Amino acid sequence: MIRILVTGGTLDKEYNQLDGELVFTKTHITDILRQAKCTAQVSIETVMLKDSLHMSDADRECILERVKACPEDKVVITHGTDTMPETAAFLGQQLSGKTVVLLGAMVPYSFVNSDALFNLGCAFSAVQLLPEGAYITMNGKIFSWDNVRKNRQKGEFETLD
Amino acid sequence: MIRILVTGGTLDKEYNQLDGELVFTKTHITDILRQAKCTAQVSIETVMLKDSLHMSDADRECILERVKACPEDKVVITHGTDTMPETAAFLGQQLSGKTVVLLGAMVPYSFVNSDALFNLGCAFSAVQLLPEGAYITMNGKIFSWDNVRKNRQKGEFETLD
Amino acid sequence: MIRILVTGGTLDKEYNQLDGELVFTKTHITDILRQAKCTAQVSIETVMLKDSLHMSDADRECILERVKACPEDKVVITHGTDTMPETAAFLGQQLSGKTVVLLGAMVPYSFVNSDALFNLGCAFSAVQLLPEGAYITMNGKIFSWDNVRKNRQKGEFETLD
Amino acid sequence: MIRILVTGGTLDKEYNQLDGELVFTKTHITDILRQAKCTAQVSIETVMLKDSLHMSDADRECILERVKACPEDKVVITHGTDTMPETAAFLGQQLSGKTVVLLGAMVPYSFVNSDALFNLGCAFSAVQLLPEGAYITMNGKIFSWDNVRKNRQKGEFETLD
Repeated sequence: MIRILVTGGTLDKEYNQLDGELVFTKTHITDILRQAKCTAQVSIETVMLKDSLHMSDADRECILERVKACPEDKVVITHGTDTMPETAAFLGQQLSGKTVVLLGAMVPYSFVNSDALFNLGCAFSAVQLLPEGAYITMNGKIFSWDNVRKNRQKGEFETLD
Repeated sequence: MIRILVTGGTLDKEYNQLDGELVFTKTHITDILRQAKCTAQVSIETVMLKDSLHMSDADRECILERVKACPEDKVVITHGTDTMPETAAFLGQQLSGKTVVLLGAMVPYSFVNSDALFNLGCAFSAVQLLPEGAYITMNGKIFSWDNVRKNRQKGEFETLD
Repeated sequence: MIRILVTGGTLDKEYNQLDGELVFTKTHITDILRQAKCTAQVSIETVMLKDSLHMSDADRECILERVKACPEDKVVITHGTDTMPETAAFLGQQLSGKTVVLLGAMVPYSFVNSDALFNLGCAFSAVQLLPEGAYITMNGKIFSWDNVRKNRQKGEFETLD
Repeated sequence: MIRILVTGGTLDKEYNQLDGELVFTKTHITDILRQAKCTAQVSIETVMLKDSLHMSDADRECILERVKACPEDKVVITHGTDTMPETAAFLGQQLSGKTVVLLGAMVPYSFVNSDALFNLGCAFSAVQLLPEGAYITMNGKIFSWDNVRKNRQKGEFETLD
């Protein structure tokens, strides 16, 4: 059984026709898993729907509490890309006994060319195979929380060295 | 470095406007990896473009030879779903020293609701994390070659027991 | 008020995951009109769901009867492309007092690159503006029933001269 | 021959992965016409790429000049929805001898559920059938420049009465 914690980020952004803004209304994780024809057992929990630039320490504390509180020891977290490494580090330093994999999208699921499905697929295999710890799966790569950053010029994740 | 061997299957089927049939013209793997924003190093090789119902022992022998011949020890294979377990078993019994992950799609990449990206994401993490052997990543699950079948009534992969 | 008569054709074909065939299960016209944000008043009636290569004279008679029977004098008909000109001629020769516009798609609505929405848009304006008669809107053009054929080599509609 | 004048609007907005904003980079009209399998002869001219809330009188003057200057007497204009009625009125009051049809989209073409194709289809038939004047095709309806407004609460176009 895999727990999916939803926290927001580009992946779940939608187009608001009335004002032309990208907004959150609900998570698309259920739609994505249906398209993915996923038969792995999952339990989905929306913790928040936030742009990760607006995530505070209290938000990260809240995510940590949800990871600790859930009965599953395999946890996938959808998250905005801008501060994903910060949240991964926060979880990696304070958690034990669970495997946590964070993923997001550079292009919202509601766009034609979204990377959401691919990244979620990467996270699904990773959470089932990796030992305890906090990880990020983006761009087809698997990063440990203590060796990852987002290169904002390129819009890609990379190791520190 | 990951080798991707393309063998065909539903994933790469396209609509032929002139006769209304689903056909192969070329692989879409490059398009999929672009959409996925994959920065992992890959080397793509089209071995064949076949419906897996039409795959012969000679075809499987050919795939095995390509796996053995490539310099990479991590190999992802796109494959039709109908005989994917047979090819996985063929490879699993005869290979050593390489990690091979097969994936396909229940709905072609050219359709709105394809599972291709998700399954390829699952395969990418799996090939990087699993020990040598032959595996299948479908439906968000990871199967070993000796414990998998396609349930054709449900259109899903499952373990034998 | 516009009557929409559904008769099948490529536009409504779907992918059957269990056998890999393109099949009819239901019309997608309601989904298309929702995506189109259409606020024009319409009344949708499914007459049949057939590949137009399999349409018989009895089928065309049936379509003619539905056109005559409906209270609206503006009728849009979704139809397979292969014999669309034949049905248009059948209706054009026998109808009076109504404007009928036939359209279909070269690529099913369920594919990423479908022309269904565009062709339906062409039909919607045409049916509101044209005098009585039978017409086809395909490829961004408007054809009268007595001057149109499908060029099967090109997969396009053209005038006879 | 139909002239297509591109002025921007939601239809052409794209997602900028680096900052998460919706921006203009280029028009998608060529892509849309390819998907539409349009064989009608068109000549495409990008006049500007602007959000219609930022359109000035000078911009409208510029559009008017382009309409007057082009050799075609059938002109389709892509335009943001917010001030589309204003531009239609500006053109309707000052033009003669040409049929001009404005259209836009409530959801960008780069989104899964865009209405762009449908609206462009409506405009294509309308421009070929209507007498001289300025019109808007949105929501499956055809509006004359002197009897249309955008209902911003509903995100729909409607007549004044």
